[in-house]
Amino acid sequence: MEILSISTHQRVDMIDITPDVNRIVQASDIQNGIVTVFVPHTTCGITINEHADPDVKRDILFQLEKIAPYEKGYRHYEKNADSHIKTSLIGSSETILLEDGNVILGTWQGLFLCDFDGPRVRKVYVKILGDAS
Amino acid sequence: MEILSISTHQRVDMIDITPDVNRIVQASDIQNGIVTVFVPHTTCGITINEHADPDVKRDILFQLEKIAPYEKGYRHYEKNADSHIKTSLIGSSETILLEDGNVILGTWQGLFLCDFDGPRVRKVYVKILGDAS
Amino acid sequence: MEILSISTHQRVDMIDITPDVNRIVQASDIQNGIVTVFVPHTTCGITINEHADPDVKRDILFQLEKIAPYEKGYRHYEKNADSHIKTSLIGSSETILLEDGNVILGTWQGLFLCDFDGPRVRKVYVKILGDAS
Repeated sequence: MEILSISTHQRVDMIDITPDVNRIVQASDIQNGIVTVFVPHTTCGITINEHADPDVKRDILFQLEKIAPYEKGYRHYEKNADSHIKTSLIGSSETILLEDGNVILGTWQGLFLCDFDGPRVRKVYVKILGDAS
Repeated sequence: MEILSISTHQRVDMIDITPDVNRIVQASDIQNGIVTVFVPHTTCGITINEHADPDVKRDILFQLEKIAPYEKGYRHYEKNADSHIKTSLIGSSETILLEDGNVILGTWQGLFLCDFDGPRVRKVYVKILGDAS
Repeated sequence: MEILSISTHQRVDMIDITPDVNRIVQASDIQNGIVTVFVPHTTCGITINEHADPDVKRDILFQLEKIAPYEKGYRHYEKNADSHIKTSLIGSSETILLEDGNVILGTWQGLFLCDFDGPRVRKVYVKILGDAS
């Protein structure tokens, strides 16, 4: 298992971690299998979406704010209930495929760390499972 | 890794791909492990839900349209921001279990490709990981 | 594959199954790999979130009821369309990492079975994949 440390810059923020995950995959002996990307936090998730136009991530975060607005009748005392709700909607991990030593993503796909209660330094765990040939 | 080509028929559409995934699993030597089903697109996801009553998929798509309506203050220039948002809510992959050569799904469960920006021909990647015994 | 039977207590309910999953992992010979936790139901999902303050699960279920309210123009005849929609939003499985024989979760993370059409006894499948060393 490898561990990434990723800095986020706003309360809600999406950071493209595709290059970081690719670097870990390139350094591994495993050529074929799957890569699990997991965040050990409860106010932060992982998603795959377009990383060409930055307006896509803006729109995702914009609409998540409509779906689970900040402070809206929640009871959790830390004033970040919306962050927990967004995390369960987006999910804590992604699984991607590895073929011949390379991560297989679509042309427009990038892996994003989604911070819903930043800015902070967040951990991301990357585990590769499979065969060396 | 095996690749499926799936045709969708409307802008938003759910296609039951369980038989296609089963066919790939039956043709594999791997008897026990996991199957990862992944879409390499950013306006299209994978979900597991009831495939008996077609009204279930109608209701899922109906409510997703309430959650992330088409054109609602988004900035992404391609007029499919809603499709990207729905994709991150539904997710780009599913992992299912394989036991004694068979996919283990519940009685009512089917695997659906969810197109949020169709109709198109979409790719689905299927990777089986595990042991031959 | 191991099977858990989990009792839920209300129509919508979140049950912390972390101790049950840990018990299965401890009894396994596999030391390093991944653990897939999967529900074979279509009105019940799996999520990872904070299991310290019970208000977090209350807030998640509260907001999911806003996102997919009970009875709101759905067509599915069983009067549990909202349960199916919530299931696709939360997802049917989680994948977690296993290192040196232990599940790697963050300090505040717990694994929850989310019942959206209970109370019932629900099945959870747990599959461990990896190496004994």
